[in-house]
Amino acid sequence: MIDKLIEKIQKTGAPIVVGLDPTMKFVPDHIKKAAFEEKGETLEGAAEAIWLFNKAIVDKTYDLIPAVKPQIAMYEQFGLPGLAAFKKTVDYCKEKGLVVIGDIKRGDIGSTSAAYAAAHLGRVQVGSSFCAGFDEDFATVNPYLGSDGVQPFIDVCKEEKKGIFILVKTSNPSSGEFQDRLVQTGVTAGAADEGTGGIAFSDKPLYEVVGGKVAEWSEQLMGEKGYSYIGAVVGATYPEQGKILRTVMPKSFILVPGYGAQGGTGKDLIHFFDENRLGAIVNSSRGIIAAYQSEKYSQFGPVGFADAARQAVIDMITDIDQAFAGVGR
Amino acid sequence: MIDKLIEKIQKTGAPIVVGLDPTMKFVPDHIKKAAFEEKGETLEGAAEAIWLFNKAIVDKTYDLIPAVKPQIAMYEQFGLPGLAAFKKTVDYCKEKGLVVIGDIKRGDIGSTSAAYAAAHLGRVQVGSSFCAGFDEDFATVNPYLGSDGVQPFIDVCKEEKKGIFILVKTSNPSSGEFQDRLVQTGVTAGAADEGTGGIAFSDKPLYEVVGGKVAEWSEQLMGEKGYSYIGAVVGATYPEQGKILRTVMPKSFILVPGYGAQGGTGKDLIHFFDENRLGAIVNSSRGIIAAYQSEKYSQFGPVGFADAARQAVIDMITDIDQAFAGVGR
Repeated sequence: MIDKLIEKIQKTGAPIVVGLDPTMKFVPDHIKKAAFEEKGETLEGAAEAIWLFNKAIVDKTYDLIPAVKPQIAMYEQFGLPGLAAFKKTVDYCKEKGLVVIGDIKRGDIGSTSAAYAAAHLGRVQVGSSFCAGFDEDFATVNPYLGSDGVQPFIDVCKEEKKGIFILVKTSNPSSGEFQDRLVQTGVTAGAADEGTGGIAFSDKPLYEVVGGKVAEWSEQLMGEKGYSYIGAVVGATYPEQGKILRTVMPKSFILVPGYGAQGGTGKDLIHFFDENRLGAIVNSSRGIIAAYQSEKYSQFGPVGFADAARQAVIDMITDIDQAFAGVGR
Repeated sequence: MIDKLIEKIQKTGAPIVVGLDPTMKFVPDHIKKAAFEEKGETLEGAAEAIWLFNKAIVDKTYDLIPAVKPQIAMYEQFGLPGLAAFKKTVDYCKEKGLVVIGDIKRGDIGSTSAAYAAAHLGRVQVGSSFCAGFDEDFATVNPYLGSDGVQPFIDVCKEEKKGIFILVKTSNPSSGEFQDRLVQTGVTAGAADEGTGGIAFSDKPLYEVVGGKVAEWSEQLMGEKGYSYIGAVVGATYPEQGKILRTVMPKSFILVPGYGAQGGTGKDLIHFFDENRLGAIVNSSRGIIAAYQSEKYSQFGPVGFADAARQAVIDMITDIDQAFAGVGR
C-alpha cells in the first residue's frame, strides 16, 4: 500500500492528503436542509449531511490527489449513523481509487490493539468466514503503550499489505508537554562519577526516542520503493523537529498534519521530504473542505463549496511546489 | 458520576468492575450457533453472539457489582454491527443501574478530542436538537497529546457530570518502554555548573509526570465525596508504581486493569486504595467473562458460563477482602 501511495503521489505530483473531517459548521445550509428534510434533525440527519458533503468534495478533488484522511472522531460524534457515514466515505474513496488513511489514533494493550487492527486494516473470523469491519488502507496509531501495543498493527499490515502512521510529534500546541520531555537514553560518561547528586542524561526528547522505535519497527515491513509500510505522524507546526525526525526515521513516510488552518506553511514542509520530493505527505482538512468559508475563496459561496475545495487543493499543490523550487528541487 | 460510583462501591462492598470484552473464542458454541443461525456467519452474526453473551453475564452479575467496562475495540472489530452491540450493551447496563466505563482510550488534538468527548460522554448539536452518540458514564483517555487533547474531555465532564480515567501507567508488559523513561523535571542545582557535559535531571519517570498532570486536572472537577471526576488508569501488574501514584494523585480514583488473567493478585492491589477501601476500582475481564473456560470453574461448563462468571465475581470480591483483612482494613 505504501508503494501505491508513492505511485499516486508521483502521478498526481501532489504529496498531499485531504482531511475529510466534516463538522456541522462546515456543511453548507442547503446540504443540511436537504439532509434534515429527509432524516430529521437527528444523528441520521447529521450523518446524511456529512456524507453528501464528503461525496461532493471527493467528486471534485479525487483526480488531483493521491489520498484522503477521514478523521473518525468527526463521524463517531454522530454515533452509529455517523460511523456508517465513515464507512460509506471510506468505501466511496476507495472506489474512486484514492488511498484512504483512517485517522483513528488507536492504541491499547496487545490483544486489544489486535482487535483495533482487525477492525480497521484486517479481518475477523466469524465461524468459518472472514469479515472486514472498516477496511481502510492505512491507520494512525498511538504509541503510548509501547511495542506490544504497536506490534499487532504491524502484524496485520504484513498480512494485508497495509500501513500505519505512528504518532511521534503531534501538531497541537501542547504536544510538547510530554513529547518534548528530555528523557534518559543512557547515563553520560563521567557524569555519574562527579557526584553531582543528579543523574546525567543525554538530552534527547521523548519524540526522538519514539521516532527511534518507529525506525526499528519500519525495518520489519519495507515496500519496494525505499519506504516502509510503517510511517510516522509529525506536525507541520514543528518544522525543526521534522528536520531531525526525517533523519532519525530515514525509511518512514511522514504524515504531516497541521498545514493551513493550524498554521503550517509550504516552506515549513521542505525538511520533511527527501531529495526526490518523497518521504512525506501533507494533510490539510479545514483549509480545503471549509475553504468556501474563508475570505480567499468567498467568491465560490456556500453552493460552490466543492469547487472552492478544488481550488484550495490546486493552491496547496502550488504552495508546496514553490517551496520545493525555492530550494532547487 | 464519581459520587454514584463511590455509592455503588460502598453498597456492593465490591471495588470491582467487570470488563465486558467479548471475543468469539470466549462465546460458548451454543450461543454462537443460535446467533449464526439467525444472522449468518457475518458481522451481524458475531454482534448478535456477543450481545447475547454480554446480556447473560450482566443478568447474572449486576446485583453484585457497581460497574462494567466494555472495551470498544472488541466491538469495533465487528464493524458497524459490532458497534451497535456496544451501544446496546452500554444502554442495557445503564438500565440495570450499572455505571458504565467506556474503555475507548481516545485522545487527539483539541477539536478532535472535543468530538470524541461529545461522542462518548456528551451530545452533539444537529440543527436545533442535541443528540447523544454512545453516552457512557466514564471514558478512558490517552494523554500522549498533552493538555489540549485532554481538556475537551474535562469540559464535557463538567457539563454532563461524567468522568474520565487518563492512562498513566498501563498494565501491559511493554508499558515501560516510554512510560517508565526518566524525564527532565528540572535541572538539578549545581550540576550544570560542574561541566559534566550532560544535563542533570531529577529522576522521575514519565508516568509520574503524567500522574502529576492528572492531579492538576483533577482539581478542576471535584465530586462531593473527596474524589475527582478525573481519574487515572494504573495497571495491577505494577503495584510499586501504584503505591507511588496513589500519593501523587490523592484525589483521583484509579481504574486498575490487569487483575487475574494479566497476572495481578489481590495483595498487589492494596496500595492503590486509600485507608477507607476507596480510591480504586479493579477491573477483571477474561478472568470473569471467560471463567468457565478455566479449570477452576470448569464444572459450570459452557452452558453455565454466566453462572461461572457470577462465581468468579464472588471469588474476586473475597480475594480483595482478604487482602484488605491482611493489612487490617
